[in-house]
Amino acid sequence: MHTKSVMIRRYKGGSFEDTSDLLAVEEPLEIRLEYGPLKQRKSKNISITMRTPGADEDLAVGFLFTEGIVRRATDVFSVKGWDENLVMVSLQPDFHFDLQKLERHFYTSSSCGVCGKGSLEAVKTTVSQECLLAGMPWSIQPEVIYSLPEKLRREQETFDVTGGLHACALFDREGNLLVLREDVGRHNALDKLIGHYLRKDQIPLNDHILMLSGRASFELLQKAAMAGIRCVCAVGAPSSLAVETAAEFGITLVGFLREGRFNVYSGS
Amino acid sequence: MHTKSVMIRRYKGGSFEDTSDLLAVEEPLEIRLEYGPLKQRKSKNISITMRTPGADEDLAVGFLFTEGIVRRATDVFSVKGWDENLVMVSLQPDFHFDLQKLERHFYTSSSCGVCGKGSLEAVKTTVSQECLLAGMPWSIQPEVIYSLPEKLRREQETFDVTGGLHACALFDREGNLLVLREDVGRHNALDKLIGHYLRKDQIPLNDHILMLSGRASFELLQKAAMAGIRCVCAVGAPSSLAVETAAEFGITLVGFLREGRFNVYSGS
Repeated sequence: MHTKSVMIRRYKGGSFEDTSDLLAVEEPLEIRLEYGPLKQRKSKNISITMRTPGADEDLAVGFLFTEGIVRRATDVFSVKGWDENLVMVSLQPDFHFDLQKLERHFYTSSSCGVCGKGSLEAVKTTVSQECLLAGMPWSIQPEVIYSLPEKLRREQETFDVTGGLHACALFDREGNLLVLREDVGRHNALDKLIGHYLRKDQIPLNDHILMLSGRASFELLQKAAMAGIRCVCAVGAPSSLAVETAAEFGITLVGFLREGRFNVYSGS
Repeated sequence: MHTKSVMIRRYKGGSFEDTSDLLAVEEPLEIRLEYGPLKQRKSKNISITMRTPGADEDLAVGFLFTEGIVRRATDVFSVKGWDENLVMVSLQPDFHFDLQKLERHFYTSSSCGVCGKGSLEAVKTTVSQECLLAGMPWSIQPEVIYSLPEKLRREQETFDVTGGLHACALFDREGNLLVLREDVGRHNALDKLIGHYLRKDQIPLNDHILMLSGRASFELLQKAAMAGIRCVCAVGAPSSLAVETAAEFGITLVGFLREGRFNVYSGS
């Protein structure tokens, strides 16, 4: 499901050859929400995202959580893929959420995952206090940090063959890899990971390290903050707003984590 | 505007040092649309995107074009940044567009740039026939293709200092670089480039090569198709849907363009 084989022409050393190549699969996923009292259930399409198939239920639930719609596993009555590219999330009949807020989100949203929030203030009002305050501060050894990229790559099945997937992985304090998710969209990989833990009711993830295979954007830090993650390490560069978001939420943000060196942009 | 300096702690060779580092700037941009007859002008927020400041007017117009709202430069009466993070696009009073379609787009959109289209069919109905049919077929020499990445990198001011920006550039058939745009979001870099040409009324770009600094996703191919681009080259891997989109629209798609080698995924 993650890869697809195609015939290509490869140019190398001055000539062409016909050969096969593996591509990362990218397909649209529609997330549909069912809600309201049992006798008056309503449903609504709330998102279409381009994703790599697999863990679609986790993706849908993780997306609803990082968007501030659901808060815990028990808010969700059921979640089920209907066909290849549709997931239905059915909320508890007595679960209330702000539909207006959802619509405000979505009518303003378009070319990125930020969806009408667009400011640290808006994120601040959505991140729950439980997540922010949970757990005691803790520290990590540099040796643990710079061991992470290799562990990530070792587990990344698809990247090695397609070169086309983003990965994110959760590690414990000692640097043991717990869960890894891959996707053509980096926000989807993270929503899949967070959705996995939300469905097991194991959020906040305040005792863990989140490792990103690429760059650190605002959106990824916002999702990490929602899940109570206190330490984010990225192989690539962070953006300015990612650093500000990390500082605002007390997240330790490490970037350019490669070959035994790294930069600490926030926290320590 | 593109970069911001911050103090960081760098870990290298077993010890920490305090130093400064340059970050790619990421900030929200709100795109607001003004439309309708002069005596009854209406306005509507249509998008918030996280972007690197600069060329915001091009970004807004390019976005409206690749979303299928405006078709040509004369559809736009004026476009102006109001403050740092807001651009107002004022449409011609007699310009009509399908507001329903716009709203359908946006209520379904969230974590990617595809915004409720989500299928090749939907894209097909939006790409204008002019763009699809314009110009004669033409061919490129491999030497021209593999000279592109170096030319791109040479012009990429910001990437070299922050490591955090995506770039896209338009080349002519002979491999001369015409316009380069950079952004934290790859879709924004391409919308800026296309917006630049739309405002000069120079679309379709069917006599050009589009070069992408990263991977080729569905979204980027969809935008290229909208602009009538016939040849797309990417340093990184394409996704499965990017290859299908290229094949559908007769776009030659080259991937893994590095060090004198490349793969041809579609066309020739």
